[in-house]
Amino acid sequence: MPAIHPERLLADLRHLRGIGAQGIGVVRPAFSEKDMEARRWLRGKYAEAGLEATIDGVGNVLGRSKKAGKALLLGSHSDTQPTGGWLDGALGVIYALEVARALGADKATAGLPVDVVSFQDEESRFVGCLGSRSLTGALTPQMEEGAVDKDGVKMEDALRAAGLAGVPRLRLSRERYAGFVEAHIEQGPTLEDAAKRIGVVTGIVGLRGIRFVFRGQQNHAGTTMMKTRRDASSALYELAHRINTEFPKAAAERTVWTMGRLRVEPNATSIVPGYADLDLQYRDASDEPLDRFEAIVEKIVAEMNARGGATIEATRSRAPIPPTKMDEGLRRHLEAAAEKHVPGKWMRLPSGAFHDAGIISSTLPAAMLFIPSIGGISHDFAENSRDDDIVLGCQVLADGVASALKEMQ
Amino acid sequence: MPAIHPERLLADLRHLRGIGAQGIGVVRPAFSEKDMEARRWLRGKYAEAGLEATIDGVGNVLGRSKKAGKALLLGSHSDTQPTGGWLDGALGVIYALEVARALGADKATAGLPVDVVSFQDEESRFVGCLGSRSLTGALTPQMEEGAVDKDGVKMEDALRAAGLAGVPRLRLSRERYAGFVEAHIEQGPTLEDAAKRIGVVTGIVGLRGIRFVFRGQQNHAGTTMMKTRRDASSALYELAHRINTEFPKAAAERTVWTMGRLRVEPNATSIVPGYADLDLQYRDASDEPLDRFEAIVEKIVAEMNARGGATIEATRSRAPIPPTKMDEGLRRHLEAAAEKHVPGKWMRLPSGAFHDAGIISSTLPAAMLFIPSIGGISHDFAENSRDDDIVLGCQVLADGVASALKEMQ
Repeated sequence: MPAIHPERLLADLRHLRGIGAQGIGVVRPAFSEKDMEARRWLRGKYAEAGLEATIDGVGNVLGRSKKAGKALLLGSHSDTQPTGGWLDGALGVIYALEVARALGADKATAGLPVDVVSFQDEESRFVGCLGSRSLTGALTPQMEEGAVDKDGVKMEDALRAAGLAGVPRLRLSRERYAGFVEAHIEQGPTLEDAAKRIGVVTGIVGLRGIRFVFRGQQNHAGTTMMKTRRDASSALYELAHRINTEFPKAAAERTVWTMGRLRVEPNATSIVPGYADLDLQYRDASDEPLDRFEAIVEKIVAEMNARGGATIEATRSRAPIPPTKMDEGLRRHLEAAAEKHVPGKWMRLPSGAFHDAGIISSTLPAAMLFIPSIGGISHDFAENSRDDDIVLGCQVLADGVASALKEMQ
Repeated sequence: MPAIHPERLLADLRHLRGIGAQGIGVVRPAFSEKDMEARRWLRGKYAEAGLEATIDGVGNVLGRSKKAGKALLLGSHSDTQPTGGWLDGALGVIYALEVARALGADKATAGLPVDVVSFQDEESRFVGCLGSRSLTGALTPQMEEGAVDKDGVKMEDALRAAGLAGVPRLRLSRERYAGFVEAHIEQGPTLEDAAKRIGVVTGIVGLRGIRFVFRGQQNHAGTTMMKTRRDASSALYELAHRINTEFPKAAAERTVWTMGRLRVEPNATSIVPGYADLDLQYRDASDEPLDRFEAIVEKIVAEMNARGGATIEATRSRAPIPPTKMDEGLRRHLEAAAEKHVPGKWMRLPSGAFHDAGIISSTLPAAMLFIPSIGGISHDFAENSRDDDIVLGCQVLADGVASALKEMQ
């Protein structure tokens, strides 16, 4: 079986870390100068590895194997959060490169076609999973039209500044590929808590969002009696607390929900707020708990609106992402490789975070491999994994990919 | 009895409205160019009325009568909220000027000393009731030192820009004054709802504030399971809703409380917040309900902290303002004047908003007169009162002041 080169793998990961490094973290948001510098560097590394390397019109870097036969696509994303960690998507991008090199260098696997990719804007500067959406045809003109980042920059202008205006956009060929495999850090504490070194992902949890808008009457906090108030903030507190009280009764084991973004206007100590809004986000590996949550929300909102005070309006804040299952055939190869290298020290788990694999799975069979995140920390400068876990994960991926590709030819 | 001049009163009010006018509202925050322009105009009007007129080192405009005997001080503030209404404090300032003129023009009252004042920064650009605090000696160096406005401007720099650096600050003489009377719009709907045209204020409600700080652990909203979360926002929602549920049982008839300002960090839909803070403000005309509220808060916070999750820290967010009673002697004169002009159409009521009279009452007997606010609206461009109420209020004030002054000589 192909052997990866640990030093080369770690050296490339560290080189990529240096592009946009700030302290121990990385600032390389999609289409930034540093992001495009990283993508051009990747294109060069893909070409060195004997791949046909292209940056497409939305910034995806694709390296195509010249070998014949059914191919596997490997990769992840090299853009980061506004203040991101060094591994996140970068790990899966460099794993893909190393696996392509390792298979190419081994006589037994040198003929197997491995394509590699770094998707663009997985981290939602403009459109979450922009690159994988574009490659699968799921990116609509509507998604692009209104797309601005948090500073008000238009996606159109960012594309032009990155030199991508008019550059052709690629589409994945269903005929060429037998599937897609993405490696990633876990971004949670499950592997670490269970003392496992590899995770094989069973599915990616679905995600839905509701935005609540509370409309009351802004008033003086000293002169407006309680019985005449229509206080938008009080309605927000009640609704949020009732959701936190009712949801546990309807949740499954790994269901999560969060109300982490809100706005109260005018947000002053001495003024009864006339307006508020609140985002509720909820995720599970199956649709049933999410459906039950929506029934609960509907009931609470109807009750509160019937009672008077500030009015509550609930609307979907985003297109729901359905839960997706990872491909069982690909999973089997990853599981066998994990069991070979660290018997009993790997586990199956769902991904609580969303990934490009969730987009690609609508077009191709897809699978994911996780390595442990130290302390479960991610989307933070402090994000890290142990070097021996980084090396192990890449070797397991190489073995799993080699065995899957052999079976497919 | 002295007769006020309705046209002159309304003309002066409208002239003052024009200084800093924006649409139907007024933007004349303390020490702004427009605020200082208004103060210089007032100084001129005071001088025209035969008063010794001064702008002191914090921007108070004081007009001193040259008549002998025990004086009454009349007035309010001419600074506005960042986006304020045209009447607010301006009404009481122009009333004071008109009453001084009317008494001076009437043989029966021409010998009575009436001083007039426009206090500075009642609306808390830097220090709430700065002017009346300075005049009574309640302004400490500590209050001034750290004083910055919401844009980060230092009070020291604003004073210099307004030409007030080094200008002497005045102090009210307890010997000179028999008392202080402030007229103001009600800023609430009580008079309008009761179909009354004049309000005689019984007292100014006390005000206290608690700031809650919630410290949890910031985490990924997809990968962090509910049972391991320490979500600062959930703790905020629970505490706020429990306060809104428990306080009504301990409240008096006119007790009010508000939680209108909060912050959640990092305030993102997909991140479990690790930090939040929330201001609770509560007011009543007596201390007892406020004491009961504090016992409730203490109990809820202790319970929640014992249970785990995000920790809650509660501290006083401001020096408590004790409830103050208006002077019964002065009230009696205002009530008699109201009954004379609109028998049965006036009422006694507490002030739910704080006023300079609350500061002055620590040094001098103080009283307040209210006229109705249309729709109870204030601190808003839409703030307004009926012209006939404006004229009536000034005449009632003139009569009440004349009769009080006569009694005091």
